Amino acid sequence: MDENITSANGASLSIAIIGITGIGEITAGHDLGLTIYEKAMAQGTPVQDGDIIVVTQKAVSKSEGMIVDLDTITPSPFALGISKTLNKDPRLVEVVLREASRIVKMDNGVIITQTHHGFVCANSGVDASNVPGSSSVTLLPRDPDASAARIRARIQDLSGRRVAVIVSDTFGRPWRMGIVNVAIGVSGLEPIADLRGSADAFGKTLKATEIAVADEIASAAELVTGKTRGIPVVIVRGYPWSFSETGSSKSLIRPKESDLFR
Amino acid sequence: MDENITSANGASLSIAIIGITGIGEITAGHDLGLTIYEKAMAQGTPVQDGDIIVVTQKAVSKSEGMIVDLDTITPSPFALGISKTLNKDPRLVEVVLREASRIVKMDNGVIITQTHHGFVCANSGVDASNVPGSSSVTLLPRDPDASAARIRARIQDLSGRRVAVIVSDTFGRPWRMGIVNVAIGVSGLEPIADLRGSADAFGKTLKATEIAVADEIASAAELVTGKTRGIPVVIVRGYPWSFSETGSSKSLIRPKESDLFR
Repeated sequence: MDENITSANGASLSIAIIGITGIGEITAGHDLGLTIYEKAMAQGTPVQDGDIIVVTQKAVSKSEGMIVDLDTITPSPFALGISKTLNKDPRLVEVVLREASRIVKMDNGVIITQTHHGFVCANSGVDASNVPGSSSVTLLPRDPDASAARIRARIQDLSGRRVAVIVSDTFGRPWRMGIVNVAIGVSGLEPIADLRGSADAFGKTLKATEIAVADEIASAAELVTGKTRGIPVVIVRGYPWSFSETGSSKSLIRPKESDLFR
Repeated sequence: MDENITSANGASLSIAIIGITGIGEITAGHDLGLTIYEKAMAQGTPVQDGDIIVVTQKAVSKSEGMIVDLDTITPSPFALGISKTLNKDPRLVEVVLREASRIVKMDNGVIITQTHHGFVCANSGVDASNVPGSSSVTLLPRDPDASAARIRARIQDLSGRRVAVIVSDTFGRPWRMGIVNVAIGVSGLEPIADLRGSADAFGKTLKATEIAVADEIASAAELVTGKTRGIPVVIVRGYPWSFSETGSSKSLIRPKESDLFR
């Protein structure tokens, strides 16, 4: 593969999605940035300038100790009530409610909430897969942009390379079957590429083209991380992007007033 | 980059997204399969067994002559009426309505419809960007799975390699800002990877994990095709998947009865 193929305008036309192996189980206090730096080096793909490093929510939440043992949870009367309707563990429902700022929809055995961060997703992002222990669940990081920024700073300090970091999670969506990975935390890049005002291949001005590139990068990364492979981190290499210290996952949250489906 | 890095279970851990350059403008009757085969070879990245080839809707629609000149369209009284409310070209509204089986929502200057195929999207997928001529728009292919199958058969015949083909388009979504690429046509692979019943990294059975991998592959491809680069085709290489002659984009359409947001 010729990694130097470029278009007329110099944009890179080949992107690599590289899984980082050997990271192993992550516990509270784990220095994820250090591990990513070391394991990328160990497998012969050291971090380079312009890499976008995608880390799964599960890995970040574990490293931040965002794990709850359901055995320690006493469900409220409300949680007890709706857990019967939904046929869910009432302790899980209690945790989901605590992580929610609003219930968007509750039907067909699912709870769609808006989280304290503003994300609209199933179960407030509370998740039992890939967590050790039969009664443990992970919560989303308290501030996923800050998580991304910390991991990014650590990798940049260790490597001397400028990178971006995305924290990814797997969300469902209306209208389409299946779940896809999206960005819930961002540091170093703008999550939306705003092409409004730029010209298409015929010189016509594009009217409404804001691409959620951070979500597309998270989805691309999922093709390597999967759910059953034990690979929580990938490097996306070769995508042309620009550094931004103000990029935030908040840009990906649709304001309620422009959302026809909330 | 070591393309041979693999996980414990042998899954490939490095994926390449390779843009195919030099395809140029596509007109009705264009033999897309032949062009893809030739141009991939010409740039030194010939098609290989297991490649997934992603082709943008725009390229497919043009090759199938799915272009409408708005100057030939007479809007109905209904189209005239709502075009004023929405502040849109009444001829465009007329075409959007003809491509729709149902209007899902109409507000804030946008029309969300369900197309005859079943896709829920803005403007029935009718699009004016990257189309030559100031009054021309493209429609979605009549049967995007059949389009993917034709392109796939042609590439397989020419190359002797087994591949899959995805036709991608850019759709908005509720709750999140920005648009992302999704799969509207599929041939050769199952668009949903159903992990229900398989075990996570701790051996716990995953309960509800159906990943829309075709959408994730389409999103990954968009990182290379972009909107302004004139690259309508990419090869996704190294993703582990299995051949399926029954894979269809219909699996990606959420049935109305399981959709809480329609």
